[in-house]
Amino acid sequence: MAGGEAKKPKAKSSGGGKKKEVKKETGLGLSNKKEDNFGEWYSEVVVNGEMIEYYDISGCYILRPWAMSIWEVMQTFFDAEIKKMKVKNCYFPVFVSPTVLQKEKDHIVGFAPEVAWVTKSGETDLEVPIAIRPTSETVMYPYYSKWIRGHRDLPLKLNQWCNVVRWEFSNPTPFIRSREFLWQEGHTAFATNEEADAEVLDILELYRRIYEEYLAIPVIKGKKSEMEKFAGGLYTTSVEAFIPNTGRGIQGATSHCLGQNFAKMFEINFENEKGEKAMVWQNSWAYSTRTIGVMVMVHGDDKGLVLPPKVASVQVIVIPVPYKDADTQGIYDACSATVDALCESGIRAESDFRENYSPGWKYSHWEMKGVPLRIEIGPKDLANNQVRVVRRDNATKIDISRTNLVDQVKEILNKIQLNMFDVAKQKRDACLQVIKTWDEFMEALNQRKMILAPWCDDEEVERDVKVRTKGETGAAKTLCSPFDQPELPEGTKCFASGRPAKKWTYWGRSY
Amino acid sequence: MAGGEAKKPKAKSSGGGKKKEVKKETGLGLSNKKEDNFGEWYSEVVVNGEMIEYYDISGCYILRPWAMSIWEVMQTFFDAEIKKMKVKNCYFPVFVSPTVLQKEKDHIVGFAPEVAWVTKSGETDLEVPIAIRPTSETVMYPYYSKWIRGHRDLPLKLNQWCNVVRWEFSNPTPFIRSREFLWQEGHTAFATNEEADAEVLDILELYRRIYEEYLAIPVIKGKKSEMEKFAGGLYTTSVEAFIPNTGRGIQGATSHCLGQNFAKMFEINFENEKGEKAMVWQNSWAYSTRTIGVMVMVHGDDKGLVLPPKVASVQVIVIPVPYKDADTQGIYDACSATVDALCESGIRAESDFRENYSPGWKYSHWEMKGVPLRIEIGPKDLANNQVRVVRRDNATKIDISRTNLVDQVKEILNKIQLNMFDVAKQKRDACLQVIKTWDEFMEALNQRKMILAPWCDDEEVERDVKVRTKGETGAAKTLCSPFDQPELPEGTKCFASGRPAKKWTYWGRSY
Repeated sequence: MAGGEAKKPKAKSSGGGKKKEVKKETGLGLSNKKEDNFGEWYSEVVVNGEMIEYYDISGCYILRPWAMSIWEVMQTFFDAEIKKMKVKNCYFPVFVSPTVLQKEKDHIVGFAPEVAWVTKSGETDLEVPIAIRPTSETVMYPYYSKWIRGHRDLPLKLNQWCNVVRWEFSNPTPFIRSREFLWQEGHTAFATNEEADAEVLDILELYRRIYEEYLAIPVIKGKKSEMEKFAGGLYTTSVEAFIPNTGRGIQGATSHCLGQNFAKMFEINFENEKGEKAMVWQNSWAYSTRTIGVMVMVHGDDKGLVLPPKVASVQVIVIPVPYKDADTQGIYDACSATVDALCESGIRAESDFRENYSPGWKYSHWEMKGVPLRIEIGPKDLANNQVRVVRRDNATKIDISRTNLVDQVKEILNKIQLNMFDVAKQKRDACLQVIKTWDEFMEALNQRKMILAPWCDDEEVERDVKVRTKGETGAAKTLCSPFDQPELPEGTKCFASGRPAKKWTYWGRSY
Repeated sequence: MAGGEAKKPKAKSSGGGKKKEVKKETGLGLSNKKEDNFGEWYSEVVVNGEMIEYYDISGCYILRPWAMSIWEVMQTFFDAEIKKMKVKNCYFPVFVSPTVLQKEKDHIVGFAPEVAWVTKSGETDLEVPIAIRPTSETVMYPYYSKWIRGHRDLPLKLNQWCNVVRWEFSNPTPFIRSREFLWQEGHTAFATNEEADAEVLDILELYRRIYEEYLAIPVIKGKKSEMEKFAGGLYTTSVEAFIPNTGRGIQGATSHCLGQNFAKMFEINFENEKGEKAMVWQNSWAYSTRTIGVMVMVHGDDKGLVLPPKVASVQVIVIPVPYKDADTQGIYDACSATVDALCESGIRAESDFRENYSPGWKYSHWEMKGVPLRIEIGPKDLANNQVRVVRRDNATKIDISRTNLVDQVKEILNKIQLNMFDVAKQKRDACLQVIKTWDEFMEALNQRKMILAPWCDDEEVERDVKVRTKGETGAAKTLCSPFDQPELPEGTKCFASGRPAKKWTYWGRSY
């Protein structure tokens, strides 16, 4: 909000005159280090980076423009992609009546404790309490039943961008676990199982692209265990990210096949091509503002946020570095010309001409906000027709000529994007550990690894592992069974039960 | 949702073979006429046009894709325009704590009876009930107080796209009066009164453009009376539309100058350039999904919706009209080629190849949905290398050559857009009535006019007019004092009080 996008000023008379009072604000840096105190560091960096403001209701957070603009970039990408898939946007009410909410039993058991209830308007008690949607399956599907009659009404593919409320009491964290959050939720119905299965994976691939191509975060695609799947659904696929500093996995986004379970409850039937009555196959899929939190956790450092260029609302910040008797006006003009040239070619660039801050303060400020590339222009740069560029991701500084500046900046931004992914992947991969026995499992868990283990795929065994690993830092659970399965040699045993293993599955503590 | 965007099929063997079973569904038309029973007609047209589905909670409605796509067109326009004005998007929580909500007295008096309260989560009572935002002034401004310190933090210009809840009990109507609706709300803070005043009008101009350029609805820009202004604000400007069929004005969108009233309550102070403490000047402004309802009311007819081309998600529907032994495949190919050519040039065109509906049924279906232009291609058209185009707005049919089809369609769509505005303006203008005396006023009111009257601008008098006109169809009130004021000759008297008139003001019944 601060005057980052200040207009181009006339430079004050250079040299002579009275010296400008330059504020040297202290306390710009972070007081917590990522390695030492991750939780405190995270809270501090989202606030000081001006993404989040804490709100006077616990578990609710204000998304400031610096965060919202990242959400909008992802939204533009995803919305266009699902429209290509013939998904249409709609909007269903935020309120659900209790009878409808409770229609699908497993589903409501999963959500009931977190549902917020409206019981009053003004001074008047409502006749029946009304729930605020924690998700919209039960909101929407009574109408799917009405709209779907014949096979020509299928597939039905709807999506909405909205807020949902889950009144959790445990450990609220900005973006990651909040009582209200923004998301998209897609809800589709098909005539056949095959179409539904295919869409589950098409959507999951879009989620992978959001994480890997936009947020520069490696994720693992896989299937959730029976215990961890969506309440009331048939099976759940997800992209799973990992936070090396805490050794916790984090569910990045989920694409569920609901099977025919909701169709049965909500009587979503259709006449198929043979004139027979059939039940639809359904999917639902969502990603939320949690994505932004994962990005902060993975890339941020002790200087603040580090934003991947593809999602940064300011990709390049241009800072004049006037010096004593130098040609200040010339420097300012060069900065403006640089910003103009970059913006014209589609790069999101801004200048910081504020006169009450020193260049050094500005460097720190924009580093805190995570701007991928800084361009400095001082007297020497002006003389040499060059600019100095400083990368946020690895702090490298190089001088580049102003003659083909735009192309070079584009290339550097691309390199930053790729490098951020590579570095994140190296760090993540260093935390992957393949194990075969319980002892190895416990050792790896204590080392905060993301553990790939042969598993018998028995729900009781997962429950048992949870009990046996319960501790201060939380129990271990399955994250996903990766689609990309290593070979499982005949006779491999489950690390936990000793029974024959059926698949490789990722385990770990998680958010 | 029905298969309007069916894929291009292979035509069934033309001639010979067994005749296709073509469904002739009845009940496609409207059972109510706009002139005879406006309220019922409206409910029917928004449902049959597939914009709205009634929901099982009274006053809440489902926005189906056919409505949502219109909202998205307006959103794309408005969002880009405010971004040019350096407004940034953000997202504040949907929940407000009671102490904050009640901070500004006049404001809360205006909204209190309609506020929905959350008192429970799961089975647990909340310690303090929490309100759902009816609007976000009190949600946001405590943080404006925190973020704004010096003159360099100004202006602060934020906007959010969100849902709000006003639990009204009177006469819910889709789009027009619903308990939850979608809107944007802009909230800005300036160092000076002048900047705030200027922005109020800049935003109002964008609202005028939404109505006049996008929705083809004439509006009057003006200022609200003291009685009708935003609760807690300094003054309110609005664009006012009119529904000739009911003789009611309807507030289209509002741009408020809040003055320094909220700044005082929420202590939004800053150090000005002279180093003195000063209070900010604030605005807030909003338009909502109500816009879509006004559009339906103004343009719809007895055949259904009539959508202005600029907001229609399907601007052109192409329908094959095969006939007995004609070259059916040739007709289908011509339809596909037409859609492709139109889409390539940026026109939103679709074909309707469904084989279980007759061409006549399809005509009615797409007329019900309000698609601006229909293209029919039959054997004769194919032979003459032409297509038949039928306008939704005035039912005129013309044959145009396929050789420069795209340019002609573009021109016709433009003409439809302009004609819809002109026709709406003629109808609206025919309802405008200038009066000078109470008798003339009552006569015009009974004739359902939008009445321009000289007024003394006294709140007591407006209250009195309300009392004197109270009846089954609702009391008359001020709509706005138009910025475009006719001459007010010296000595003109207020129509209601007989005292000297201060301005011309529009009066009428309203939504």
